[in-house]
Amino acid sequence: MALEAQGGGFVLTLGDTTILEHGADAPCLFVGRGVPNIEGARGHYEIDDYVVERIALRHAEIDGGTIRLAPHEGAPWVLALRIAAEGGNAEIAFEALDPAINRLWLRVPAQPGEHVWGGGEQFSYFDMAGRHFPLWTSEPGVGRDKSTLLTWQCDQKGAGGDYYHTNYPQPTWISSRRYALHVDTSAYAAFDFRHPGFHEIEVWEVPARIELWARPRFTGIVTALSDRFGRQPPLPEWLLKGAVIGLKDGAESFERLKAYEAAGVAISGLWCEDWVGLRITSFGNRLFWDWQWNADRYPDLPARIAELDARGIRFLGYVNPYLAVDGPLYAEAAANGYLVMRPDADEPYVIDFGEFDCGHVDFTNPRAAAWFADTIIGGNLIDFGLSGWMADFGEYLPIDVRLANGMDGMRAHNAWPALWAEVNAKGVAGRGKTGEALFFMRSGYSGAQRHCPMLWAGDQSVDFSRHDGIGTVICAALSAGLLGNAYSHSDIGGYTSLFDTIRTPELAMRWSEMAAFTAMMRTHEGNRPRLNTQMDSDPQVLAHFARMTRIYAYLAPYLRKLSDEAVATGLPVQRPLFLHFEDDPHTYAIQTAYLYGADLLVAPVIEAGRSDWSTYLPAGADWVHVWSGETHKGGQDVTVPAPFGQPPVFYRAGSPDAALFAGLSALG
Amino acid sequence: MALEAQGGGFVLTLGDTTILEHGADAPCLFVGRGVPNIEGARGHYEIDDYVVERIALRHAEIDGGTIRLAPHEGAPWVLALRIAAEGGNAEIAFEALDPAINRLWLRVPAQPGEHVWGGGEQFSYFDMAGRHFPLWTSEPGVGRDKSTLLTWQCDQKGAGGDYYHTNYPQPTWISSRRYALHVDTSAYAAFDFRHPGFHEIEVWEVPARIELWARPRFTGIVTALSDRFGRQPPLPEWLLKGAVIGLKDGAESFERLKAYEAAGVAISGLWCEDWVGLRITSFGNRLFWDWQWNADRYPDLPARIAELDARGIRFLGYVNPYLAVDGPLYAEAAANGYLVMRPDADEPYVIDFGEFDCGHVDFTNPRAAAWFADTIIGGNLIDFGLSGWMADFGEYLPIDVRLANGMDGMRAHNAWPALWAEVNAKGVAGRGKTGEALFFMRSGYSGAQRHCPMLWAGDQSVDFSRHDGIGTVICAALSAGLLGNAYSHSDIGGYTSLFDTIRTPELAMRWSEMAAFTAMMRTHEGNRPRLNTQMDSDPQVLAHFARMTRIYAYLAPYLRKLSDEAVATGLPVQRPLFLHFEDDPHTYAIQTAYLYGADLLVAPVIEAGRSDWSTYLPAGADWVHVWSGETHKGGQDVTVPAPFGQPPVFYRAGSPDAALFAGLSALG
Repeated sequence: MALEAQGGGFVLTLGDTTILEHGADAPCLFVGRGVPNIEGARGHYEIDDYVVERIALRHAEIDGGTIRLAPHEGAPWVLALRIAAEGGNAEIAFEALDPAINRLWLRVPAQPGEHVWGGGEQFSYFDMAGRHFPLWTSEPGVGRDKSTLLTWQCDQKGAGGDYYHTNYPQPTWISSRRYALHVDTSAYAAFDFRHPGFHEIEVWEVPARIELWARPRFTGIVTALSDRFGRQPPLPEWLLKGAVIGLKDGAESFERLKAYEAAGVAISGLWCEDWVGLRITSFGNRLFWDWQWNADRYPDLPARIAELDARGIRFLGYVNPYLAVDGPLYAEAAANGYLVMRPDADEPYVIDFGEFDCGHVDFTNPRAAAWFADTIIGGNLIDFGLSGWMADFGEYLPIDVRLANGMDGMRAHNAWPALWAEVNAKGVAGRGKTGEALFFMRSGYSGAQRHCPMLWAGDQSVDFSRHDGIGTVICAALSAGLLGNAYSHSDIGGYTSLFDTIRTPELAMRWSEMAAFTAMMRTHEGNRPRLNTQMDSDPQVLAHFARMTRIYAYLAPYLRKLSDEAVATGLPVQRPLFLHFEDDPHTYAIQTAYLYGADLLVAPVIEAGRSDWSTYLPAGADWVHVWSGETHKGGQDVTVPAPFGQPPVFYRAGSPDAALFAGLSALG
Repeated sequence: MALEAQGGGFVLTLGDTTILEHGADAPCLFVGRGVPNIEGARGHYEIDDYVVERIALRHAEIDGGTIRLAPHEGAPWVLALRIAAEGGNAEIAFEALDPAINRLWLRVPAQPGEHVWGGGEQFSYFDMAGRHFPLWTSEPGVGRDKSTLLTWQCDQKGAGGDYYHTNYPQPTWISSRRYALHVDTSAYAAFDFRHPGFHEIEVWEVPARIELWARPRFTGIVTALSDRFGRQPPLPEWLLKGAVIGLKDGAESFERLKAYEAAGVAISGLWCEDWVGLRITSFGNRLFWDWQWNADRYPDLPARIAELDARGIRFLGYVNPYLAVDGPLYAEAAANGYLVMRPDADEPYVIDFGEFDCGHVDFTNPRAAAWFADTIIGGNLIDFGLSGWMADFGEYLPIDVRLANGMDGMRAHNAWPALWAEVNAKGVAGRGKTGEALFFMRSGYSGAQRHCPMLWAGDQSVDFSRHDGIGTVICAALSAGLLGNAYSHSDIGGYTSLFDTIRTPELAMRWSEMAAFTAMMRTHEGNRPRLNTQMDSDPQVLAHFARMTRIYAYLAPYLRKLSDEAVATGLPVQRPLFLHFEDDPHTYAIQTAYLYGADLLVAPVIEAGRSDWSTYLPAGADWVHVWSGETHKGGQDVTVPAPFGQPPVFYRAGSPDAALFAGLSALG
């Protein structure tokens, strides 16, 4: 990293890359004051800012590695930057010299045709160029496309979203100029890639620092980010045996599982989120949010789990960070002072989740976090016999809370998912089960990587729609994967069925085909099980699903290698094409196909009514279509037949695993 | 007006009212730079601003009536204010001392419970307190309510709107603190009444000046504003004889008019917008935008006009500021250099109005304006025999135009409606027909008052909806009326029929009832005549309409007095209740009832399915229900029967016109 004075300003370069360029006529730093207006309800937020002042810092003075900035010469210094660099890594530390400043804007030079990826787990646009990305953990919304009637209908109920809404934002981007940039903050932030000539970062505080990594190849950047944010343990061996079957039918779930087994489904686990029991509301059945076995809904569960275990099938459950006020755990937490408190009263901050109120366990209180990790995760879940669970939610922390460590809600809100991941991971580690007990999360933020062993892409709509449906999970896996999240998966068939959106057999099958080429296969009955196609509600769907689970299990040796690679290098299981083909610029904006490891290219059918499918094959390799054995030159679009059961998948000719891949076509 | 130094700042008062209050810790002035992003198509605009800098001017120095401001002590002065006052009037003139400044924000102190009215012609909120009002002339949009399916459907076609969209914005407000404030600008501006403690004015330039008027009573403020912006001539005598019947059936219109006469409709004019002929498009019949008689559509029109005249009925037509490229007037304008030009080529700027292109006559070119006024308005319209016309549009000027006087499009856009009004008024004056030939406009901006003799409230939806339907025209008349527009009216029954919105007989009748108590009654067949109820398509509707026109004609002596009053004082015909009852604070936010002159209170039925209606009667008078003769004390809500034909109308007991009003109930 080089810091050089230039004119009245300075230039900061990392390797060959100009990171900051500052002059009195073209300042790259602005500070100011804003008054936020945030309306939040049930994980949906309307965020608006009244920017009272936004001041260009035109005057800079360099003193060694320190830059001091002021609006103009003679004015008091308002901001100091301290630059540190080592090899391809650099850091710009910020210090506000004026305590009134609560906004910072920073411009980073941009080039025409530049691509930018990351932003956490993005569902709509893998390449963020040309768009604005607020970064605030929230419900993604149903739908996320203002041109659809569904989105409008949901907007009327406060449940709609937009292209940038995500459970897992992160203020980190990777540029095609071969550097990564991370803003070390949990305040509200936004990346604005709409301006010609510069990217603008907005942060609702003066952040501690901005971190930078430049590497000659993209894989090096991904490894550097995984070094920074933490890696996940290897995938548990039991997982690779097949799919986790999601059923929430009480004791009946065990009976239904037998039909899956009879149909030849490769099964690794049975996931019953209703293991905690039900609460009947006017909206339908909800789970009872008190995190322990409910014997009414699941009589003799310990024995049932033992029976499953004898058949090589694990049992998984469900937990989230809230406690229903009418459950015993809430009472215990309240008595011990473990709950997030109201700003205006000495009372726990409860929120309405739809005919039931819950408190939040305060994870900034070390005793509360330890209690949740040890008593609930360790005791009620792991000791009880769970091998995994959905660790749901994490995005709902209100901003007007009172927390044990004094952190304000505006900064705690984004930090919460990583705290929630940490609680789960500590519970697992406390029982020596890291890499064995597997929990999966939808929410995330910087640092969740270190704790969360598996992402799940949240609640897709049960359809093929562009911004809510099946295709969004590819975008999610690719964007999160670049930032150090090696493992992603999704609810097979999607989750959200609202208004006229109903899961069809075709969707269930296309989703299974994609899921077979991800880190984990897991089904979900969705929010309206009876109205939607289930894997076991249609013989064709079940047979097809069985086939796809056998493919997943067949590829276990390959997935194990990918998992080992993830542990060693931080490279994700699902990778954008450019990660291994960065010399082919056609690959840079592709978000409908991915590499599964370095050697398999997967282009799932994500439209309805298709019997064939086209995809681009990167230049620099030959590609063998796994079902026909036909070889295609890279550097072109190809069209292949795509009947149910034969998703468009290609392997790289000459792969060390070519024989394994070639065997796929012989699978029954 | 008093300007006093206070601390390091100053206080500016007008009478008892603090207009500006400035201190280093609470600056009231901010300047900066913005980069606008404006997408416009067919009168709909998406307006966004990237505010690069917004700088508080904390340091002030007073020198006599001049205030110089800088960001802080020692910094160069960036803005100068010059204060002038006389009696209750004051002016703050602005001078930018830094040419880079293109944004100004000004805070005016606000009080809890303060009401603010004006903003031009507002359709949704008469009292603007608590909301944000961008001021940019545009299509109002259908609909203007994001919670309706109709609005969403229209938004998908770029035709939707929001609560603040209006054909006629104006950067002027009246505060319940008994002052008015006007920003002398035609740049994009916005009033923001959402902040506690202050109103914020945003202007996309440093405006020439802000003007202020303080008066002890609201009527005095209205008079002052009409003095400032100009008054309208008296209503033509012929108008008061009855309704203007809108038909666009070619020669058939004359036949259909006979049915109106036979039904006893009081008729003042026949309005045929299709007098210029039709253009057949795939969307349906459109008018041919070349402003002269079309003999194919209206054979023998001069003779027909003479026949009507003999029966005491005037003939009215239609004009707008655009010229279709395939009409002879376009060719003439182009040949003479009268057209608005493209920024990038020496060609007229034509825009697509839906399968036909038009040029704009450049009203900043005095020769072009004179040509339109004399040749078209004077010659083709008045000399031909028209007694009035709809002077449509005015909101569509693109922002990237090249104009004869060098004005840039961002400033010309808002100025255009007043220029368009002026062209019409000059055409009328040139033939000595001021106060006799009557044109009516929907678009407007500061200064249109001086030229436009009659507002029409634009294209309401043919329904009872809150933000698009019948009730919006009351809000429109009241807001515009406070700013010096004495005369408003609307399309009886509304205009816009889209998707499932169809004009019902009930709506037609309720709208007639309201229109009888406005300055002008006029029908419109709407955009889909065949699908919608017409006055002559239902005997009950026609009989009811006839009754309402007779009521209008019966009240002509009263309306004449109101017109005389408007000429003398600028008070509008339709007035908010508080204008005469300012000691009754209950009246301040009422926008569903109005005073028709000082002595009639009209509370039109603006909901479907009602057989009675409730309204508030102001304290300080007794009110006689015109149909029952029953007297009600003021200061209370009353409910009265509201059968068709008996709209809720009350007169002030003791009115000099009490006998006239009492006679209403005896009308057939």
